[in-house]
Amino acid sequence: MSVLKLKQHRQLIGEELDRVVAFWLKYSHDTQYGGFFNCIGSDGKVYDELKYVWLQGRQVWMYCRLYRTLERFRKPEILEAAKAGGAFLQKFARVPSSGSPWKCAFCLTRDGKAVKIQRTIFSECFYIMAIDELSRVTEDKDMQAEAAQMMDHLIHWVRVDPSVLGRPQLPGDQPTNSMAIPMMLLCLVQQLTDGRGADVAQRYKEIGAWSVKNILQHVQRGGTAVLENVSVEGGELAGCQGRLQNPGHALEAGWFLLQYAADHGDEALRNTAISKFIELPYHCGWDKQHGGLFYFLDVDGYCPTQLEWNMKLWWPHCEALIAFLMAYSQSRSPAHLDVFSEVYDYTISHFSDAENGEWFGYLTQEGKVTLDFKGGPFKGFFHVPRCLLMCEQILEGLLQKHDS
Amino acid sequence: MSVLKLKQHRQLIGEELDRVVAFWLKYSHDTQYGGFFNCIGSDGKVYDELKYVWLQGRQVWMYCRLYRTLERFRKPEILEAAKAGGAFLQKFARVPSSGSPWKCAFCLTRDGKAVKIQRTIFSECFYIMAIDELSRVTEDKDMQAEAAQMMDHLIHWVRVDPSVLGRPQLPGDQPTNSMAIPMMLLCLVQQLTDGRGADVAQRYKEIGAWSVKNILQHVQRGGTAVLENVSVEGGELAGCQGRLQNPGHALEAGWFLLQYAADHGDEALRNTAISKFIELPYHCGWDKQHGGLFYFLDVDGYCPTQLEWNMKLWWPHCEALIAFLMAYSQSRSPAHLDVFSEVYDYTISHFSDAENGEWFGYLTQEGKVTLDFKGGPFKGFFHVPRCLLMCEQILEGLLQKHDS
Repeated sequence: MSVLKLKQHRQLIGEELDRVVAFWLKYSHDTQYGGFFNCIGSDGKVYDELKYVWLQGRQVWMYCRLYRTLERFRKPEILEAAKAGGAFLQKFARVPSSGSPWKCAFCLTRDGKAVKIQRTIFSECFYIMAIDELSRVTEDKDMQAEAAQMMDHLIHWVRVDPSVLGRPQLPGDQPTNSMAIPMMLLCLVQQLTDGRGADVAQRYKEIGAWSVKNILQHVQRGGTAVLENVSVEGGELAGCQGRLQNPGHALEAGWFLLQYAADHGDEALRNTAISKFIELPYHCGWDKQHGGLFYFLDVDGYCPTQLEWNMKLWWPHCEALIAFLMAYSQSRSPAHLDVFSEVYDYTISHFSDAENGEWFGYLTQEGKVTLDFKGGPFKGFFHVPRCLLMCEQILEGLLQKHDS
Repeated sequence: MSVLKLKQHRQLIGEELDRVVAFWLKYSHDTQYGGFFNCIGSDGKVYDELKYVWLQGRQVWMYCRLYRTLERFRKPEILEAAKAGGAFLQKFARVPSSGSPWKCAFCLTRDGKAVKIQRTIFSECFYIMAIDELSRVTEDKDMQAEAAQMMDHLIHWVRVDPSVLGRPQLPGDQPTNSMAIPMMLLCLVQQLTDGRGADVAQRYKEIGAWSVKNILQHVQRGGTAVLENVSVEGGELAGCQGRLQNPGHALEAGWFLLQYAADHGDEALRNTAISKFIELPYHCGWDKQHGGLFYFLDVDGYCPTQLEWNMKLWWPHCEALIAFLMAYSQSRSPAHLDVFSEVYDYTISHFSDAENGEWFGYLTQEGKVTLDFKGGPFKGFFHVPRCLLMCEQILEGLLQKHDS
């Protein structure tokens, strides 16, 4: 691909990012109660006032990351929005009555009352990401310490005692290594250590290695498949759960591993990340007939039981774009750039809303928009801008190297 | 519609029922561990061995109801299968470690170990249906008493103290009247009282009336909509949850109400059932472009956040067939029979699998099969045969009246 083409990509991706940021700045801020509206229709109208802690945390993180890493987003309104979101989270997200002062709600009313608690760790993960990133732009050491403390509790829940999560221990509930858990922990390790020096790196060294090991256990069937759920010993589980593939998750894990491999100068891990977590999920997960990535697949070709299995969701495509561009930036293999371009063309032409801005999130297998909102309980200001930001930065790096 | 047409319907529906029963008799029995396989592929192959308590209970109930009410199913193999399923449930479904000796698991391993517990009452509902119906064919009084005892606990959890269900009480979690709860309780009242005389009827009279009242609260917006979730005072709730419509549920509630109205000679309730719970959900929920009933709708026309909102699922169509045929049998309005025929034609042509028997469960909005299994975590031996059995019986009744 020519330098001209890379420049065009950088230009268009930058413009797309500007449009996406403008959409959320315009429509999502709750100036009355703080925090962000999450449920936002195609044209920007708020259609539900519930506030989802995953999405509150992700939006704080995203604003801060934009503010911190791209000059044109270093604007007071972005910093103020991030701070307001952080204050809302700190005031309302934790639910001490749940049995731990560190457990967070999944969902809050507009004015911050807890509506629902999930029996998982993800609200806490996005809380940590949010306030750690916010501590970086505000230089607030207490906030950084709070993130680190919550991380310690999270690790304890995952590795030692999950009882606070509220899931009863049942004799038939086989302990499972679900991809999401080590992925999120690795993501958090990178968040908490990035640029912070040897002491902090040392503190999270073991859990980082543990996360990588637990991600790699998902490569199964002699290296021919990445499975979403495996046993804690790294073996294949029986039934639908064991055969499930989630190409978007595998691709996301792929670029987490690539970053980790680059940070640690681990060439073998880089090669595994590219071949098993980036190339393989694309080859298994890409719909040769209609284009786009399937949401779920069964490795033996049975029909998944998830009703949305053949739908095309926005976020796996975001992860694929990051993964293939990052792979290219390390491998310089033209094949990686070709896949990036193929995914980019599908993604922009199907998900991006040229009329009102931002992206649709949910398409049929054939590529028709089937849920037309821009924000919903699981779609917020996160995957799209993170993808565009990272792609812009990677392209910038490639072009700088070329110029120099 | 001519008598000839009614006879044709009865004939075809009876044949369809025979094919469906044959499918489950052939493929679903676990002769090694007891109970039934639930996850059964298009061609009958078991693709997962987990046993879902909802579906175990429903299958026991269905076998017993067939055995008890249609002469041609009064066969030893059906009775034995029902007994084996009942024994499996009684041995494994309850999970005393959950905090109550009456709480049931949602899902079991093949050999009966609890895998998951839902924070709801539905596993218990189908357990009650199963063993009460089984007690009717076996004349086992202990079983009947067990069903009645569990019902008492269920009512207590719903009306007095839900803490055993394990959902934390949260300040933002507004108490909600969800259609499924009073619907299921009314269904259970009918199950437990049917043909059992005045004493038993008296015992459940108050909870029956309470259930009807709580179902009727779902008629909102000046009688123009049935909403799936309302406040416990019967007002509209804010947001997506409050605007949600589930036409299949409304139609199912419709025929439960029709039965109740017939049992109690309540003409006003009969008229409400027909106009608000049968005609209205059909008019709101039928897809004028592609045919079939939408799964979820938003009363204000926003896009529902459920990814499957526009899919066509088998069970709402089953409920619509029962509801319109029962409405016709009481109203003799040709319009009800016309809708029955329209739904019947769509249903048989889209869901029924002429090649391997049984029905597909999940179609795209356009009517294409998108999950091809016959049994899954929520689709078992229940809605299809219950619909076919009841339609055959109603048609039989209509034809007998005509002949006499």
